[in-house]
Amino acid sequence: MQLVAVPSTAEEETQKTRFLRACMRQPVDATPVWFMRQAGRYMAEYRQVREKHSLLEICRTPELAAEVTMQPIRALHVDAAILFADILLPLIPLGLELSFSEGVGPVISTPIRTMEDVRKLRLIDVEADLAYVMQAIRMLRGELQVPLIGFCGAPFTVAAYAIEGGASRGFLRTKSMMYSAPDAFHALLDRLSDVLADYLVAQIRAGVQAVQIFDSWVGELQPIDYATFIQPYSHKVLARAQAAGVPVIHFGTNTTHLLTLMKQAGGTVMGFDWRVPLNDGWRILGEDVAVQGNLDPAALFAPMPELKRRAELVLRRAAGRPGHIFNLGHGILPNTPVDHVRAVVDFVHEYSAAHHS
Amino acid sequence: MQLVAVPSTAEEETQKTRFLRACMRQPVDATPVWFMRQAGRYMAEYRQVREKHSLLEICRTPELAAEVTMQPIRALHVDAAILFADILLPLIPLGLELSFSEGVGPVISTPIRTMEDVRKLRLIDVEADLAYVMQAIRMLRGELQVPLIGFCGAPFTVAAYAIEGGASRGFLRTKSMMYSAPDAFHALLDRLSDVLADYLVAQIRAGVQAVQIFDSWVGELQPIDYATFIQPYSHKVLARAQAAGVPVIHFGTNTTHLLTLMKQAGGTVMGFDWRVPLNDGWRILGEDVAVQGNLDPAALFAPMPELKRRAELVLRRAAGRPGHIFNLGHGILPNTPVDHVRAVVDFVHEYSAAHHS
Repeated sequence: MQLVAVPSTAEEETQKTRFLRACMRQPVDATPVWFMRQAGRYMAEYRQVREKHSLLEICRTPELAAEVTMQPIRALHVDAAILFADILLPLIPLGLELSFSEGVGPVISTPIRTMEDVRKLRLIDVEADLAYVMQAIRMLRGELQVPLIGFCGAPFTVAAYAIEGGASRGFLRTKSMMYSAPDAFHALLDRLSDVLADYLVAQIRAGVQAVQIFDSWVGELQPIDYATFIQPYSHKVLARAQAAGVPVIHFGTNTTHLLTLMKQAGGTVMGFDWRVPLNDGWRILGEDVAVQGNLDPAALFAPMPELKRRAELVLRRAAGRPGHIFNLGHGILPNTPVDHVRAVVDFVHEYSAAHHS
Repeated sequence: MQLVAVPSTAEEETQKTRFLRACMRQPVDATPVWFMRQAGRYMAEYRQVREKHSLLEICRTPELAAEVTMQPIRALHVDAAILFADILLPLIPLGLELSFSEGVGPVISTPIRTMEDVRKLRLIDVEADLAYVMQAIRMLRGELQVPLIGFCGAPFTVAAYAIEGGASRGFLRTKSMMYSAPDAFHALLDRLSDVLADYLVAQIRAGVQAVQIFDSWVGELQPIDYATFIQPYSHKVLARAQAAGVPVIHFGTNTTHLLTLMKQAGGTVMGFDWRVPLNDGWRILGEDVAVQGNLDPAALFAPMPELKRRAELVLRRAAGRPGHIFNLGHGILPNTPVDHVRAVVDFVHEYSAAHHS
């Protein structure tokens, strides 16, 4: 055997550690890459499962959740798996009526608007009430060669869904509650942050090797409101997950104006959307944190040369500094061409291995 | 007559110049204030007109457009009027089928997607084809005691509507055209920027004393795409309006990451949404430009003490520096309490007169 021919087991060994090493800002052989919503509607295998099962059925059936989680691992050369689940699952045992409406998204028919509503939330035991999530994690750890990422919604984003009763454009009810009933708002965030912290710790105990908190809507807020109403609760979730001993990725969209406060809230890795150039975002945060991102999901629809040019730009901005995990700036969109997704993964590995070693 | 009792004609004289003086960063007796979408659905007078007339009918009937423009001038003590119109009106003479669907917003049944579509756009003469707008302006100038602001959509925002066929969440078709057919995208922006510049110049000739360009969706873009695909065309519109001799307000939402490039594109006054604290935004832009903003429209739903606290915070951040125009961070929302809007106007005048003179 020649020295240049690396045996495949060593290659696998390297791929297994690439993502976790990058989280800790350790040097890697190639930039690790995974995609938010890498299991989903753009894959034919996923649509086949969805023909027979609702979104909630998949989430609540460990075999199905595990199967769907594995689909992109088989189809792409990504460096991490992310558990298939929905950020609103913890609302079900809390007593909210959650359903998913085609083309509309989540609908909560019993939204939370008052202190009375907050008080009526049930006490829950995440290990028991969300046992199906922990079961899926245990099944996946037996099967996966790459690290498994667990996740939850951030307290604000989960609260915004619970208050609005679904997705929203201007988050008027959420802000109205914040401005008109701040005690109830704080009580809701406090309650949710305890539940979400418990949920992440339970996922870590079940075997996930990293976690991400998704604060998808937080960019709606101005810094002073983030600092007053959100930061303490995000901090609680992030700190408890970090104390449980795994890397924690803190992700939000539309957060250029909030990056410093979000970093203060916590996270081993900070995730950006595509708006802020990666080098600018990293400069704002400082070098003592890893970053994840940030190709525009729309770029996956571009012709291949343009797509590669845009992926290369993200890598050039990261400049090969230890601590970059390649990802999109938000989840993969429906109808994204699978061959483009696969090509980006391979391009990121090849380009970074050649230019940044 | 005592010196402290200023005669009302002098007061009116002061109010007439307050807004324009602030645009030019000259000292004022009190911070001028107006609101984006100050004529609209939140006012009973407007809803009465809408019961009998569609949005497009109001826009295209000078008497109705002028009447609706006057409604907030009578009800509030705002320091400027803004012509009632829609940013998509210029698309009609260009040959696009535009309608407004209740609860959905604008619908363009003949969207632009290819170079062929761009080539098919009709040649227009804005003075003739949008004569109803100029007529409304002339009527208003005879009636108004405060300055009249004209406006248009920025080339990107108008193009995004034309490409998507209406409002959009992710602007995937717009970005796809940008990435896959850049020549067609540039051709469309070039064509629109000529039309929009002509349109603003025609409004200025008809009598508006300032103009605003609304780039409501531009925050979707990353800086490199703004610089390549948008900035030259926004610059063309802004420069031609500035050359016509009136102050030009350059407004966008979600633009913290774009402020420097937007300022380079032009504008006498830069408008912010509520996300970036006014002092931070002003620092990024530099002191050689006036600023407009930036109370969160949702704050108008807060209880009065909280609302005043938030309005005061905006004024404190402006620190009484010449060149601040108080406004919201985006348009007034439907169902906004009119008495809260009125109270904010009076509060801004009183607080700024007392603290910043």
